[in-house]
Amino acid sequence: MSWPPIREELAGIEPYGAPQLDVPVQLNVNENPYQPSAETVADIAASVGAAARNLNRYPDREFVALREGLAAYLRSDVPKAEITPEQVWAANGSNEVMLQLLQAFGGPGRTAISFAPTYSMYPEYARDTNTEWVVGHRETDFAIDLEKARALVEETRPHVVLLPSPNNPTGTALPPETVTALCEAVGEAGIVVVDEAYGEFRRSGVPSALELLDRHRNLVVTRTMSKAFAGAGLRLGYLAADPAICDAIRVVRLPYHLSAVTQAAASAALRHAPELLGYVAELREERDALVDWLRAEGLEVADSDANFVLFGRYADRHAVWRGLLDRGVLIRETGPEGWLRVSVGTPQEMDAFKHALTDVNGARA
Amino acid sequence: MSWPPIREELAGIEPYGAPQLDVPVQLNVNENPYQPSAETVADIAASVGAAARNLNRYPDREFVALREGLAAYLRSDVPKAEITPEQVWAANGSNEVMLQLLQAFGGPGRTAISFAPTYSMYPEYARDTNTEWVVGHRETDFAIDLEKARALVEETRPHVVLLPSPNNPTGTALPPETVTALCEAVGEAGIVVVDEAYGEFRRSGVPSALELLDRHRNLVVTRTMSKAFAGAGLRLGYLAADPAICDAIRVVRLPYHLSAVTQAAASAALRHAPELLGYVAELREERDALVDWLRAEGLEVADSDANFVLFGRYADRHAVWRGLLDRGVLIRETGPEGWLRVSVGTPQEMDAFKHALTDVNGARA
Repeated sequence: MSWPPIREELAGIEPYGAPQLDVPVQLNVNENPYQPSAETVADIAASVGAAARNLNRYPDREFVALREGLAAYLRSDVPKAEITPEQVWAANGSNEVMLQLLQAFGGPGRTAISFAPTYSMYPEYARDTNTEWVVGHRETDFAIDLEKARALVEETRPHVVLLPSPNNPTGTALPPETVTALCEAVGEAGIVVVDEAYGEFRRSGVPSALELLDRHRNLVVTRTMSKAFAGAGLRLGYLAADPAICDAIRVVRLPYHLSAVTQAAASAALRHAPELLGYVAELREERDALVDWLRAEGLEVADSDANFVLFGRYADRHAVWRGLLDRGVLIRETGPEGWLRVSVGTPQEMDAFKHALTDVNGARA
Repeated sequence: MSWPPIREELAGIEPYGAPQLDVPVQLNVNENPYQPSAETVADIAASVGAAARNLNRYPDREFVALREGLAAYLRSDVPKAEITPEQVWAANGSNEVMLQLLQAFGGPGRTAISFAPTYSMYPEYARDTNTEWVVGHRETDFAIDLEKARALVEETRPHVVLLPSPNNPTGTALPPETVTALCEAVGEAGIVVVDEAYGEFRRSGVPSALELLDRHRNLVVTRTMSKAFAGAGLRLGYLAADPAICDAIRVVRLPYHLSAVTQAAASAALRHAPELLGYVAELREERDALVDWLRAEGLEVADSDANFVLFGRYADRHAVWRGLLDRGVLIRETGPEGWLRVSVGTPQEMDAFKHALTDVNGARA
């Protein structure tokens, strides 16, 4: 018996997380590079101050005001979807939303599937909830082949399908036909979770799966305030779905999981949506320009609907990652072998990245 | 197949939680009745404002400053224990701390035990982590019989023992000999969690299990800022244990589980510990006076080391609960049949409770 008596399958596992290094240009965790304005910061502080006057009391377990704010925002983002507060659920980051979904709909004897390469936390959510994890594969362009996906659903009869759109780390958005086909294939035996953590960065003409909600009651669309709302430090993830799905989550959620402080800060940030989302258009343009530049450099680049770009391929990607880090630019060594992922930053950060990459490529040539 | 496809054992279960009713005198969820001062509120707001300037960045995954603050506070509360930041872990409420402990050390094929009557969330943590749940029983004075407890450990070979001290809803503190005996009986095959959510309210002469930490590396002591720190709305639970136990939790914790906002607000509240803890002495006196008053009324009352009192016994406790509610006083219908639990409030709230109870008892006589 070794110490401590952690579960056997967890022994020796390194905790998840990108290195938190103190580097001038941080383009490794898909953060939004723009800080909130002084006005937004002041409103967040004042709102938390108002909530703190009753900090001795438990928070609103149903976070009604926050759910109303999130529903109103989703209606503004996707007017066709007509989201109501009863369709909205939130937790401490999409992380916790996903954990709750797998606790309620996955778990021992149940199966979750996704299609690799994809977000590296998905198998951790499955492991943490003792859900069987089965992974299909994406094509070389990182799209999901519909026939293969249907076959995997037939074979595994999944209770949860995790479909990021756009996908992390590839940036690939899913066409609505794929979502519809998988919702139909899974049927009422399971749920289909479209993870739109980066949804607001989709290129124009690319629809949100929120538009499909009224057609598929087994469809769940998750969002986060971490990226488009520039609120990674806030830890506020949420979803829109059939109210019966929100009720199912209530059974497994820890009571009072969202603090009064979090509820107040998130509601304040939502009131400043026009400002916080104002940078999204800028980041999308910067992203498209980065894709063009990398392609002009002769690199392979995945189409991106997100605030990051996957590029390569390198025989020794670690050497390139390391070379960039030596030049003060931190990106992420993730995704399929040979590829690297860079987050879209400010124009200044993109210049620094381009210079460093040119330098590294030159140094290696 | 019914809709939605929630796990079979969760179907039809009502979400946990006391009714959140708008009543003048709320003595049902063991909140601290004292609001933080204007100075403390201002510091919390300012600290969150400072953190919000970088809200676009992920929080410190290791919440170093907060762990240092919590360790310093524990050293001041129990100087003998010499707690270091490496021994401290925190999450969104003790709820999440317990969930993480059971994810790491419990789970399918493993067993957790406690002794009833006890906190009604414990079986939910076990259920949510698919841990087998076995419950022993307390004596009529709500103490744990050591021989019976040892026998239960021998029989079930638990991976996690949950020992609230003081116990909720009875208010009963555990003698250190019981903690020591159970740590020895469990050995290195499991952990013993002493839940000191109400630890600061213990009567003088009653020791904290923190004093035993250096003798038992399988001992975990949990605390919360909800009660003594008057921070129920903050959702900050924490523990002290062998650093190897903290490392085990890191494997299952969701990355960035503590927001920058939560870290800043909790650290600010810790700086105002003298004020926030100042009311604890007052509440302990009020609690002792309440016990005396209830006994003088001819009621049975459990000894209490917490900020609540269990009293009874009533043939129809629901009628008494309802009668109090009709008079604007909300308490909790919980614990063994015939008993009721009342939280300790301000002197004014205690007067309102006493008047209402006298009235209800008169109305029923």
